[in-house]
Amino acid sequence: MAKNAFYAQSGGVTAVINASACGVIETARKHSDKIGTVYAGRNGIIGALTEDLIDTSLESDADIAALRHTPSGGFGSCRFKLKGLEESKAEYERLIEVFKAHNIGYFFYNGGGDSADTCFKISQLSEKMGYPIQAIHVPKTVDNDLPITDTCPGFGSVAKYIAVSTLEASYDVRSMAKTSTKVFVIEVMGRHAGWIAAAGGLVEDQGIPVVILFPEVEFDKEKFIASVRAKVEEYGFCTIVVSEGAHWPDGKFLAEQGTRDAFGHAQLGGAAPVVANMVKDELGLKFHWAVADYLQRAARHLASKTDVEQAYAVGKAGVEFALNGDNSIMPAIERISNDPFEWKVGKAPLSEVANVEKMMPMNFISDDGFGITDACKEYLLPLIQGEDYPPYKNGLPDYVTLKNISIDKKLPDFEV
Amino acid sequence: MAKNAFYAQSGGVTAVINASACGVIETARKHSDKIGTVYAGRNGIIGALTEDLIDTSLESDADIAALRHTPSGGFGSCRFKLKGLEESKAEYERLIEVFKAHNIGYFFYNGGGDSADTCFKISQLSEKMGYPIQAIHVPKTVDNDLPITDTCPGFGSVAKYIAVSTLEASYDVRSMAKTSTKVFVIEVMGRHAGWIAAAGGLVEDQGIPVVILFPEVEFDKEKFIASVRAKVEEYGFCTIVVSEGAHWPDGKFLAEQGTRDAFGHAQLGGAAPVVANMVKDELGLKFHWAVADYLQRAARHLASKTDVEQAYAVGKAGVEFALNGDNSIMPAIERISNDPFEWKVGKAPLSEVANVEKMMPMNFISDDGFGITDACKEYLLPLIQGEDYPPYKNGLPDYVTLKNISIDKKLPDFEV
Repeated sequence: MAKNAFYAQSGGVTAVINASACGVIETARKHSDKIGTVYAGRNGIIGALTEDLIDTSLESDADIAALRHTPSGGFGSCRFKLKGLEESKAEYERLIEVFKAHNIGYFFYNGGGDSADTCFKISQLSEKMGYPIQAIHVPKTVDNDLPITDTCPGFGSVAKYIAVSTLEASYDVRSMAKTSTKVFVIEVMGRHAGWIAAAGGLVEDQGIPVVILFPEVEFDKEKFIASVRAKVEEYGFCTIVVSEGAHWPDGKFLAEQGTRDAFGHAQLGGAAPVVANMVKDELGLKFHWAVADYLQRAARHLASKTDVEQAYAVGKAGVEFALNGDNSIMPAIERISNDPFEWKVGKAPLSEVANVEKMMPMNFISDDGFGITDACKEYLLPLIQGEDYPPYKNGLPDYVTLKNISIDKKLPDFEV
Repeated sequence: MAKNAFYAQSGGVTAVINASACGVIETARKHSDKIGTVYAGRNGIIGALTEDLIDTSLESDADIAALRHTPSGGFGSCRFKLKGLEESKAEYERLIEVFKAHNIGYFFYNGGGDSADTCFKISQLSEKMGYPIQAIHVPKTVDNDLPITDTCPGFGSVAKYIAVSTLEASYDVRSMAKTSTKVFVIEVMGRHAGWIAAAGGLVEDQGIPVVILFPEVEFDKEKFIASVRAKVEEYGFCTIVVSEGAHWPDGKFLAEQGTRDAFGHAQLGGAAPVVANMVKDELGLKFHWAVADYLQRAARHLASKTDVEQAYAVGKAGVEFALNGDNSIMPAIERISNDPFEWKVGKAPLSEVANVEKMMPMNFISDDGFGITDACKEYLLPLIQGEDYPPYKNGLPDYVTLKNISIDKKLPDFEV
């Protein structure tokens, strides 16, 4: 009897994580002799722990295909970190019990660094407990911080969104600068690394003056103000891209400026208004600011075609590798050439992925600390190539909401 | 000798104001026997006052055509309001002098309510001063507040952007709500009217629970919190669309919550973080918030096809009406039917446009004050129909930046 598969989405969702789900499920359906049903965890790994397993075979081929153009996590995701094998022993054992109860032999875990670690531990435990499971980690994260793989599916689409949005808003400011707004600030995601902020720098080649505040560079107010002043003097306007992780030398985020409301409560503000007010106080320039937040990682309407293809490809490869007998690996994007852009999917052992964070190379940041280098542009540009528009219906994208029907439980309840 | 034309962009720019410019210039080029050169004001009406006239005949047909898919104001815009004929007498007379010096017989002014008023006054003055000018106002404003016309070009694309972004972010939150973010707040433009905020309500028919805070409805914290609580209890999550103009009963904007930085300076905050913190304090729910700001009005990558067509059509009609001898009018969109959506361009006399603000009908807002009615949906949906993607080059939209070469001045300087 063919073993069943389990698939779950983990952590912050993206514009293309469902494209990976689509790759996993469509490929499994093509191999129904070897893979029985694909069960999806409702709300990620919590679904496995609580035995809340969605029967994806009840979804039509058309709906599964529509996952490819639907942002967010179609089965629900969660922020739930399993700890070490000893510390979270009950949880790991429960997972194996659930897999055993439903004849699950394949574990596809779609997430970032933490889920790679969980995936790795499950493959170790499976061996120890004598219940064979092939554990495959399908990479996803807008943070672009997984090692070995050239990029993480999800990142390319955010990069495209930020580059396009920065370009468009900069054109706007350029039109208005004579009598009105001269400085536009856009805040982008990336608490620990400046990958997303770097994408804003791609508009420089379109004649837009940009100052980027990276988490990698300690904030120097004097240098920053001087840089903005110089750009405004030269161009008449300036765009600032600030990472949510931009911080002072003492590590305090720019966003935590001790702002308090009328009642003295600390307010969570965002870095963009702080930076904008700083520019106004120091230079007296009129400003506007935006905080893209979830809009950037959910913007499937502007996804990068390259990113969608890579997201699908790692899902598909995950299943193919599993059928080939692989275990404890992650399909990884390998860049073959930049021009023309060519890539393929290779394999990374989870032992080398778990607990390793890939930082942005310092030679991607310009000497003054406020821009990106040619090496960075060469890396980023291929990732935002191509458009992959969703179908529209009545003016809005025709995104799918799955039926998500759970199978009957066989085990006693488990407290999460 | 054919008279020349003057064209200028006024006030906040949009994703499609350049499509109107394209409509004006392309149509004028087709009638070169009757219209000589189209001069554009550099930075709007300031260009006319300072005799800084851009010779659009030096731009290639391809570049003028590219205006149709390029957001922002291609010739620069400005916030500069002319007052009454007596108060701003010197400015009005200067305009006529400049028009006379350059044999300008057509004045196309592309803007909102204030520019309609200026346009009307110029047509009056032209008569009084005995120098004939046909003054045509080409409607534009994301605020959607011009009278007579069914909608204002620029609004449909913002509405589409906000509807799509709200949908995408809501899908994101829905995926995360089990263990993480349960409430997402998006702040949208519209200081005086809730047209743009209303567009966020279009996602309700996609199964998304939305609470809208309109400028038309005095903010009632207790009712608001109760509404959010009920949605989260029913759906597990909730999306809040807050207009920048949302305000307390005393008129104070939600955004002005008296927040102060560490040094006691008042901080300009935005309504979204205020609302988000309120939800956290009262309900203890995890939130995320976004402020779309210029991204929404510059988002040509997601323009409504209907909006682009209407923006072009009012520019084209403006020239055709002028050639037909019309003066002191505004091309206005007339809705013929909703399903199928049909419309045509009619004429509105500027005397009836100037100084009249169209508010959102109160029957567009649901009884509880937090949603939109079917009548509102019927009005909005046709305006966001269709996609009209710009061409892309190397991963980014291929927007045009014009040469914008000024002609020689003939008059003494004029201080603005």
